[in-house]
Amino acid sequence: MKHKPTILICNDDGIGADGIKALAKEIKKFANVIVAAPHTQQSAVGHSITMSSPIRVKEVPVFKNLYGYAIEGTPADSVKLAVHTLLKDKKIDLLISGINQGANTAINTIYSGTVSAATEGTILGIPSIAISLTSYTYTDFSLAAKFASRIAKVVIKNGLPKGTLLNVNVPAIKKIKGVKITRQGKSSWDDTYEIRTDPGNRKYYWLTGSMRKIDKTIEFDVKAVDEGYISVTPIHYDLTDYKMYEEMNKWKI
Amino acid sequence: MKHKPTILICNDDGIGADGIKALAKEIKKFANVIVAAPHTQQSAVGHSITMSSPIRVKEVPVFKNLYGYAIEGTPADSVKLAVHTLLKDKKIDLLISGINQGANTAINTIYSGTVSAATEGTILGIPSIAISLTSYTYTDFSLAAKFASRIAKVVIKNGLPKGTLLNVNVPAIKKIKGVKITRQGKSSWDDTYEIRTDPGNRKYYWLTGSMRKIDKTIEFDVKAVDEGYISVTPIHYDLTDYKMYEEMNKWKI
Repeated sequence: MKHKPTILICNDDGIGADGIKALAKEIKKFANVIVAAPHTQQSAVGHSITMSSPIRVKEVPVFKNLYGYAIEGTPADSVKLAVHTLLKDKKIDLLISGINQGANTAINTIYSGTVSAATEGTILGIPSIAISLTSYTYTDFSLAAKFASRIAKVVIKNGLPKGTLLNVNVPAIKKIKGVKITRQGKSSWDDTYEIRTDPGNRKYYWLTGSMRKIDKTIEFDVKAVDEGYISVTPIHYDLTDYKMYEEMNKWKI
Repeated sequence: MKHKPTILICNDDGIGADGIKALAKEIKKFANVIVAAPHTQQSAVGHSITMSSPIRVKEVPVFKNLYGYAIEGTPADSVKLAVHTLLKDKKIDLLISGINQGANTAINTIYSGTVSAATEGTILGIPSIAISLTSYTYTDFSLAAKFASRIAKVVIKNGLPKGTLLNVNVPAIKKIKGVKITRQGKSSWDDTYEIRTDPGNRKYYWLTGSMRKIDKTIEFDVKAVDEGYISVTPIHYDLTDYKMYEEMNKWKI
């Protein structure tokens, strides 16, 4: 790298989360880091944006010597507002969203706020990476942060095609087997709702469930992670089903 | 159709919106209709789901003789809760989400709550259709409702491949030219944020912008609608960029 790159860091766990601090610290070793992230936890918000209400911003300390923008909105709002308005004159070389706690593999990819921040970066023309540590309880971010740094450098060097981003999932283990380029798994949730009663005797519902894993080979993100590999899935936001697009031209509607 | 089909109707504009009423009325002519929709407006929520708080449900009148479930959650919550819990023993033949006010073409597809409800239906194994009238102000839903009925019958007859749904956009005009099978357009937003000051002299930001239309031919959803055609785009939620997946296997990471 000839010049010191400028890297925008976002997440969906909120600006106070340990994962974003670990990421910012590691990336700061070779880049100018700007942090712009939701002020509170925003998991499973998907690609929400705020249109019908105003957004406020505060500058808050991320760690010693580094201030960031805490944004009263979703992950996608944070990226949009940072790129369009807060950092208007800055050239941003890369966006990294994370480090998320919890896997963003298989069907989780479409519910993920972490991925949506990186998708928004891509829409705005910035090469973008989403990175997750596949556990809610494991708090050693060092391996994931180091890999973020490594893949960031590769992406700055190689670039990414217009409209493509990388969705990275790092297993929550001490020693990984390697890196696999993967595709989005087909596994999804066996959802149930617990039916409960509140103190006023009114019924309410609470989502619960477990992942039904149907992906058997390490070409899929879920299985690669389960086998101890870091999974890197190139994704895009052209949702067209091209096979069906051809097929449907034969339909009579 | 041998038996009377059962059709679940959802939306993102809320159970009180005119579009869902128009849709339910038209579909009721040939099917058993069940309505389960957010209790309030939920536009641009993307594929949000509610995990960290409880969800409440009320039965409310949609129109004369038809009650529906008003759900304190997102479009995807509404579908998940209806299918898993409220309608547990019912076989649902089809889900229709809409009729949304405003286009869900091009980049809007990924922000859309209307599309996310249909996506959730697809994930749960129900053939699903999202339908939008491409105007916020035009309130004649009759043509869109009639087309919803027509394509519903076609989908019940032909089925849809596992993982595929249809995203339908109906132009807000009296006389359409026909129906086009389309792909998701590449057009996106030129966003800006208006910077304002509140009565307490604090700064806030409000999203505004206009669609930058770059799609020139009617193979794309945006252009098909602009030219007076109903656009039907088959979409899916496998976000893998397969071209890049092949390419990246040559990368050194």
